Order: sequence, then structure tokens, then C-alpha cells
Amino acid sequence: MSSRPGPAAPPAADLARRLAVARGDEPADTVLHGARTLNVFTREWLEGDVAIVDGFVAGIGSYDGVERADLSGRYLIPGFVDPHLHIESSKLLLDEFARLVLPLGTTAVVADPHEVANVLGTDGVHWLLDAAAELPLDVYFMASSCVPASQFESPRRALTLGDLEGLLRRSRVLGVAEMMNFPGVVAGAPGELAKLRLARHVDGHAPGLGGKPLNAYAAAGIESDHEAASLEEGRERLRAGMWLLIREASGARNLHALLPLALEYGPHRLAFCTDDREPEHVADDGHINAIVREAVAAGLPVEDAVVMASFNPALYHGLCHLGAIAPGYQADILVLDELESFRPRQVLKRGAPVGEIATVAVPEWAKRTVHISSVERGDFAIPWRGGRARVIGLIPGQISTASLSEEIPSLAGFACADPARDLAKIVVLERHLETGRIGRGFVRGFGLQRGAFGSTVAHDAHNLVVVGVDDEAMLHVVVRLRELGGGLVVADADGVRAELALPVAGLLSDRSLAEVLSASRQVSAAVAALGVDFPQPVQTLAFLSLSVIPALKITDRGLIDVDRFQIVPLSL
Amino acid sequence: MSSRPGPAAPPAADLARRLAVARGDEPADTVLHGARTLNVFTREWLEGDVAIVDGFVAGIGSYDGVERADLSGRYLIPGFVDPHLHIESSKLLLDEFARLVLPLGTTAVVADPHEVANVLGTDGVHWLLDAAAELPLDVYFMASSCVPASQFESPRRALTLGDLEGLLRRSRVLGVAEMMNFPGVVAGAPGELAKLRLARHVDGHAPGLGGKPLNAYAAAGIESDHEAASLEEGRERLRAGMWLLIREASGARNLHALLPLALEYGPHRLAFCTDDREPEHVADDGHINAIVREAVAAGLPVEDAVVMASFNPALYHGLCHLGAIAPGYQADILVLDELESFRPRQVLKRGAPVGEIATVAVPEWAKRTVHISSVERGDFAIPWRGGRARVIGLIPGQISTASLSEEIPSLAGFACADPARDLAKIVVLERHLETGRIGRGFVRGFGLQRGAFGSTVAHDAHNLVVVGVDDEAMLHVVVRLRELGGGLVVADADGVRAELALPVAGLLSDRSLAEVLSASRQVSAAVAALGVDFPQPVQTLAFLSLSVIPALKITDRGLIDVDRFQIVPLSL
Repeated sequence: MSSRPGPAAPPAADLARRLAVARGDEPADTVLHGARTLNVFTREWLEGDVAIVDGFVAGIGSYDGVERADLSGRYLIPGFVDPHLHIESSKLLLDEFARLVLPLGTTAVVADPHEVANVLGTDGVHWLLDAAAELPLDVYFMASSCVPASQFESPRRALTLGDLEGLLRRSRVLGVAEMMNFPGVVAGAPGELAKLRLARHVDGHAPGLGGKPLNAYAAAGIESDHEAASLEEGRERLRAGMWLLIREASGARNLHALLPLALEYGPHRLAFCTDDREPEHVADDGHINAIVREAVAAGLPVEDAVVMASFNPALYHGLCHLGAIAPGYQADILVLDELESFRPRQVLKRGAPVGEIATVAVPEWAKRTVHISSVERGDFAIPWRGGRARVIGLIPGQISTASLSEEIPSLAGFACADPARDLAKIVVLERHLETGRIGRGFVRGFGLQRGAFGSTVAHDAHNLVVVGVDDEAMLHVVVRLRELGGGLVVADADGVRAELALPVAGLLSDRSLAEVLSASRQVSAAVAALGVDFPQPVQTLAFLSLSVIPALKITDRGLIDVDRFQIVPLSL
Repeated sequence: MSSRPGPAAPPAADLARRLAVARGDEPADTVLHGARTLNVFTREWLEGDVAIVDGFVAGIGSYDGVERADLSGRYLIPGFVDPHLHIESSKLLLDEFARLVLPLGTTAVVADPHEVANVLGTDGVHWLLDAAAELPLDVYFMASSCVPASQFESPRRALTLGDLEGLLRRSRVLGVAEMMNFPGVVAGAPGELAKLRLARHVDGHAPGLGGKPLNAYAAAGIESDHEAASLEEGRERLRAGMWLLIREASGARNLHALLPLALEYGPHRLAFCTDDREPEHVADDGHINAIVREAVAAGLPVEDAVVMASFNPALYHGLCHLGAIAPGYQADILVLDELESFRPRQVLKRGAPVGEIATVAVPEWAKRTVHISSVERGDFAIPWRGGRARVIGLIPGQISTASLSEEIPSLAGFACADPARDLAKIVVLERHLETGRIGRGFVRGFGLQRGAFGSTVAHDAHNLVVVGVDDEAMLHVVVRLRELGGGLVVADADGVRAELALPVAGLLSDRSLAEVLSASRQVSAAVAALGVDFPQPVQTLAFLSLSVIPALKITDRGLIDVDRFQIVPLSL
């Protein structure tokens, strides 16, 4: 038996019925009549009835069906497949995520659950796998390869090789997720090479890598990258034989830089992914459909854009039943009125409109994940005699940072924030095992004039990160986050100003999209009221603890020089 | 562990070394310097050294190596991969086949061993699998799905579902071979559907199928077809989501009919295959390289032609280590002086020139396969009272036939050949189990004026087929074939005129290519001397017993109306 992913071979009786419908000997369950259907193989629009039986396409031609939908003048395209995302960025549980993205045309996703894995370990991933089985959205997973993302991060516990092997044995797990420790892979670190031997299908993550190190990364068998940000990076990855997953996340947006490659080389070995999309971003703009819309508006032929959003990502992951409207493919079909907005008039999932989606049950242990011993203002204090310090420098619109050298003022022997120079204090508190470990530093670029805000969403280990210009406000943030069991909190010296509770793993809400958006907007407004005037500062904060993105980051273990890949002291 | 085909993951030490070479920290085993290398992903020619270590490409760039080949002015392309062939058509044992095709640039093949399987059963296939492991040529297999090709054929024994499952468990077996019983698949025959459930990767074979029946065939999960002969057939297969394997066999040649599809849609989901190529054809013209040459001469861009001959066939079969010159790919590389002949100046297999190829051992049981009880002239007699008969009508250059209605003369109550009207007698004798079963009929189109010729190569069951206008000559043929243990024999009333012994399964020679060619040319000349004046009459004869190619065929069980898929009487 082949172990290609996807549904098991249909029972013989179902297959016999599928063939009878294809032959025209039995009526289809549903016939979609009168529309033009995109053929992803030839990139043509074809006319003919689409016959659907038991959720699969039987054939395109002249067919009869029990139900017959007149779709004259409409367009049919395959459902979108997101080949790389972290669902946790939506802040939503799987069921609510499905309610959000299915109407936007995303009918399958391949998720790296590494945020949950950092907080809840394999228990959390098995819970997600079980929950996914109940959904109309097809959710596949990659086994999170980098928990922790590096030795500088502190998840609840590290995922071992045995943990990964166990995950890979579950049927929805397609391969090994993004190998973020790209310096380790390139250097041939035995622990990283051992992970590569667990599966043949391995996602990459190699920001800025090029030349011979990129050759090494590709030679290791890593098949894709979604971190390319420039045309030349993208071109180099394609030439090295890697799939290029063009990412349009809420933070990093690479579509416009990479789109010329699709025009130059055609759509092959290219796909779109969302990686990390915030709930507001999806609600306001869309999901994969928004990337298609933007790509088409920028001049990519519609047919190529849809191929890059459906067939190609399915092909990349070996999901050979997805991504096309053709005999034998799962009938995940978007009905469109026009070819500009890519807002589907209707979404058919396995041949039928999506019905009510059952609520995913959350186990109690998934809600008790913020473990911090008593905290006080003094925990944020940084002894300092003056002088220059390493300071994290924000780069607008990027999750990478600059490593700055700045004079830090001191008061009574302690380092101080300096709002006038846009210098804020940043602190990361270990929150999984109550170790009391705290990393302390400074960041420039938030524009924070007063108060503080913090989050238990703090990539990738998701400890508690707080930025502030006022230790009292920072204390309010931490105390409230502990009470909530995680989330986002904004405070000033007087107390909490706004909050979004994320009690599930400290990452996810158990509420509806509308409630999440409402609270999230209040948080954004409250942060703006503290003087921060660029988009998505909370998300920017959440990535300052990700130790595998250049140049200077901070974890509970201290400041991390990512380029040198070591912990560095605050003072220079 | 994924079960994707290809070599096992390299040992950790080998992978570490590969990465060290890729990084430039250790010298490569070999560096190919100065050439332009085809990048199959972007279809560009790139400059740079190709660094090879342990038989794999480490990287392309500026590299040092223990050996450094100056290839200035040359072109490097990936070795060719034949995605569908029957090696038995070469009449050569695996080692001699490898000696023949490797210098022509074919570095990997995916073989359906169904000729051997019909004669030697799974024992024969396991023998081939073991022999393949010793070769520098990469030989993969598909599990022969149709032994017998239909219920009208008599192999030594049928391959059961259990037999197929056993074959699929061997590491070089990639999936289920061409599902030739396409009427059975389309009709949903339970036995055929059961085969489809054995693997996700299934080759097709559906000559002339179109419309709804083709939808059914594709909906069954069959992924390719190599039988398309017209532009519209090819287009319809691509639109149905099937890979189109463009066949240039010795008999059926479809390149020129299908090439416009590559120009219209691009090279994607297209590949070249040889299917059945005679040894003379390969020796005189070439193998996959000849198809590339002809395609380029006909206007296909070189880059597209090479992609269709290397990367695409490897991709189709999931051989993710083959078909490209890029980091991590097996270093199967052709060095070309120009881009017209596609006759390689040098072939590197796993990074090195191909050395001496060891002889494949042939077990004794593989040489004792012609079991026919005593035969006499009377066995060829056909009682006949005159009148019209169903006659097989040859179609020049095709393996399909016409079903003709002809007046057959009789003499003393028996039907006679009539050379003046180009009517010859054709007889098929069961030769595996000594049943004495004989099918008898007539054929028009050979132009045979006297004598007879026959073969134990007689698709697919490989019983003994003889065509003649003289029963005495036919008897000489059968007696000699029995003595030889199989082969090709030409005789007239005076005795044997020429022969090619094929003692291995009655299909393969155990001699060198040169000896096979010499004998084969004598056979051709002797057949021509009997009045036959079109190319390859012996091969045409060998396909007259293939009961799955329209319209009228003959087996040891009688005349087969392939369109109605039933045995029919001679008389009309």
C-alpha cells in the first residue's frame, strides 16, 4: 500500500458508483450546469456540466443529476489550499477558523502547529489532529520540527525525535514542518540531520540564506521555502530546486517582490501561503483569496494565480485528491461571479454547501498554561551604570530587526526607558514551568510614550513578553495575563486599559470571531493611545522573541544575536 | 517514515559530508567546470561548477574538487528517465539493455515486466528485481496489473491480487502497471477495482477511449495514458487530469501527433516514453534521446524537450531524487557537445562514467518455457465449407487492426491461404502448460507470398504465433521454436531460413546486442524474401495476439472481437 496522503481508497461500492456516474449510467448527486470551469492542467476555461457523486467529481460533460444547479455565467475554480500556515495566528479554535476561511474559499490547509506544540507539547497536537477530523475544512499538519526553535527558547518541553516520529505516524501528518534552525541544517548539526531522516517531505524556512549555504540547505532534502523576500532570493530558491511558497502574512508580505518570478517562469513550483495571518487581516482582507486577488490585480493571469492557490500547493504536499476540478478529485469548488474579487458566491466542500460546524471541545488542561510565580516591579529592574547597550531596532513591516547600539539612561543604578528617544524596556518571563527565568532588554521603534502592553503569544516558545516605559504598567500587564490564562493586555500606571483573553494555551480564544475582533480592536486602540502609531504593534512584539529571525531578539534567557547565534549581554 | 520511492535517506555521515561539500568546506569528489547546465525548474541554462559528492549533486557555484573536469563549451542536462517501457521488447537481458541505453543517455527506466510475468509469473519478476539491484542503470518497476491482459489470453498462470500485493512490497516497485483492461475499469468490474485499491500510483492504457468512459477511467484514479494517438485524444487526457506519456515505440509512434500539445500548453504533465522499442530501433535511432532529438527538430524548445525526458517522468513516478541537476539530486548527468543530436559525449551515472557492467545470471528454469506437445500439419487445418470469414486486417504502422469480412477459399473441406489476395493463415499455440489449445484464423496485409514465420514473442501471453501461406512451412517454424526454447523463426517448405533464438522465457536472448542484431537482421531479410515488404512484420505479428487492442485479434482461444470484447467465430 502506498502511503500517499489523502483519503483512503474509497470502498469498492463507492468507486463503482463513482464510475457509473462518470459513465452516465447513474445520475450524479449534483450537477453544476452552465458555468465555465477552470482546468488547472491546461489552464483553460472549459464548458460542460460538472457531475458530483459522494463528494467527488465524476466527470465533466453532459450529465444528469438528482440536483441540478444552474450556474450560467458563473466561473468554477478549485478550492484554495494553503500549504503553510500557523492556524494559531488567527487566535481562533479550529472550528471558528473553519467558519472564517471556508466562505473565503480556503478549503484545505496544511498547518504547522508549532505554537500549540510549544505550549502543550504533543498532547496539544494530538488534540488538534482529533479536532481536525470533525471539520468540513481539510486540515493537514506537518510535524513541528523546531520545538524549541533554538536552544535559546524555552517551550514547555522540547519535542524529541521520538515525538516527531509519533506525530508522523498519524494520518493527517504529511511530513516535517519548517526546519527553522537553518544554520544548524547548513552546518550539518547531527540533531537536525536526524530530523530530516524521519520523512522525505520537509518544509523549509531560510530567511536570507543564499549561495553555498542555500545549496547545503537544499542538498539536505528540504523542499520549499516561504521566507524569500526578494526577487533574487526567490529566483535562487527555484533554481536550487526548492518550491517557492509566496507568503503574504500579516507581518511579512512578499507577494509583490516575488510575483515577477511567476510572470517570468510561469506558475510552476510556486504557491501562495498565509503563514501568520491575524484575525482582523483575514476578516478585513481575506485569506488565500486575497492573495489571488492582489496577484491578479498586479498582472498575473487569473489561470496562473488560481493554479498557484489550488493545484500547486496540493501537488507540493502530495495531496493528489485536491486542487482540481477533474474526474476523481474531491469536489471542493468555488463558484465565482467574476474573476476580480475572488470572493466566492458559494463554496462547495465535498460537493455540497458547508453546513453548521460543530464546536471543538477544549480539554481543561489546555486552559491552564500560564504558570508564573509571584511577580513584582523589581523583577523588571535592570542594574545599570550607564553606557551603550545592544538595543533591538524595529524595521517597519518586517519581523527581522536591527541590532542597534544606544546610550541607555540610568536612574539610581537601574536602566530606564526613554520615551523621548523611543527607547522602551522589553521583558520576557518564562511561563510554562514557573522557573522565574526573565530576560530583559530594550527596544527602539514602538513609539511608546507611556504604559505597557504584553502578550503570551510570543514566538515560538510563547513565554510572556511585555514592552513598556513604566514598570508599574508592566506589572499590571503581567498580573492580568496570569489571571486570564494568557492573551493580550494593555495597561498604564492606573491599570488595565484593554485586553483580549486567549485562555487556550495562552494562544487561542474560545470565543467567536466577532468577539475576538472586538476585543482585538480595543487592544489595538489602547496600544495606539499609548503613542504607538504603526500597524500591528502587538504582532510585532510577538515576534521579538523568535530567536531564528535576524538580527537581535530577546527570550527568557536574554538577548540573542541571531546572526552569531548566541546569547549576548545587554551592555556593549 | 514516508514510503516515497528512491534511495533510502543517506546515512548521517554521508549527509553531513554532502552538506560540507555544498558549503564549500570540503572538496567535492568531482567538479564539472565550464559547462552550461540546464536548470529544469526555471528552464534556463546556468553557468557554474557542478559539485558532486558520493554520487549526488552538492551544489552549483564555485567549487573545488578532487577531480576537476573542464567541460568548457559543453552542455549538461539530467539523464533521461523512461517512465513506461517493456524492457523485453529489446530482446536483451537487463545487463545488455543497460549497456545499450546508458550511453544513449537513458539513466533510469520504469518498466512494466509483464512479458516476463506472463511467462515466468512472479518468480520471473522477482528475478528481474534482484538483477536490477546489480546494475548501474536505475531500473524501477510497476506491478503488472493485467496478467492475463484479458480473459481471452493464456499466460503460464494469472497474477492474483495477492501476487500484485507481494510485488508492491518490493522497494523498486512504484505502483500498479498499465491497467490495460480499460473496458473492465470503465465498467467497474470488481476484479479491476480491487487492483486499483492496491496502490495510489497507477499507470493507464486506454487506446481510443474518450468522453464519459474516459472520465470514468480517470475517476478510477488512473493517472496516465501512453496510448493517445491523436491530438484530440491527448488533449482530452490532459484535461481529464491524466499525465500524457508520449510514446514513440517501434510500432506505435505518436510524437508528431501529440507534440502540438507541448507547444500549446507547455511541457507540464507531458513525458516521453518508448513502451516497446526493438533492438534495431534503439541501435539505429536511439532511445529517449531519439525522441528528444525528433521533438526538438520538430520545433519543441530544447529546454522543454529535456524537461519532458528527465524531470517530468521522474516527477510523475515520485522519483524525487532523479531528473534534475540540482542540490540533493542524484548526479545522473549527460555531457553534450551540441543541442541537436542528443547523443551524449559522456554519461555520468551517480557522478561517474559507467564502468563495466556485470553479467546477469539466468536461472535454468527461466530457459525452459516452451511446452508444446507433438505438433503436426493437421493441427493447422481449418475445416471450411467456403463463405465469408472474419479476417484480421493489418493497418500500416499501427498495432490496432481492422476487422475485415473476406471470402476464404476452401480445398478438400479446409480453408486455404490465398497469397494472390494477401490472405495468410495465422495460428496461436498455447505453449506454457502443454494444453494443446490452438486458435486459428486469417490475416490480410502481410503480403506473404510463400512460407511462414513465427514467434514466441506474442503479446501479452506470449504463446506461439505463426503466420503462413504453407502448412508445411508453419510446421517447420513451430518445431524449430520448440527446439530453441523460443525465439523468431522463418521457414519455407524446405525448412528453416533464419532464426533468432530467445531462450530466456522465449522472449530474451542471452547473447550480446551485436549477435541479436545480426540474427534479427537475418530474420528480417528472410521474412522480406517471403514477399513481405513493410517494416517490422515480426513485431506486427507479435501484437496480433494482444486482445486489448482493437479491433480483431487472435489468441490460443480463438478470434477476439476487441470492440465487443468477446470470442467470435471465424465464419460470418
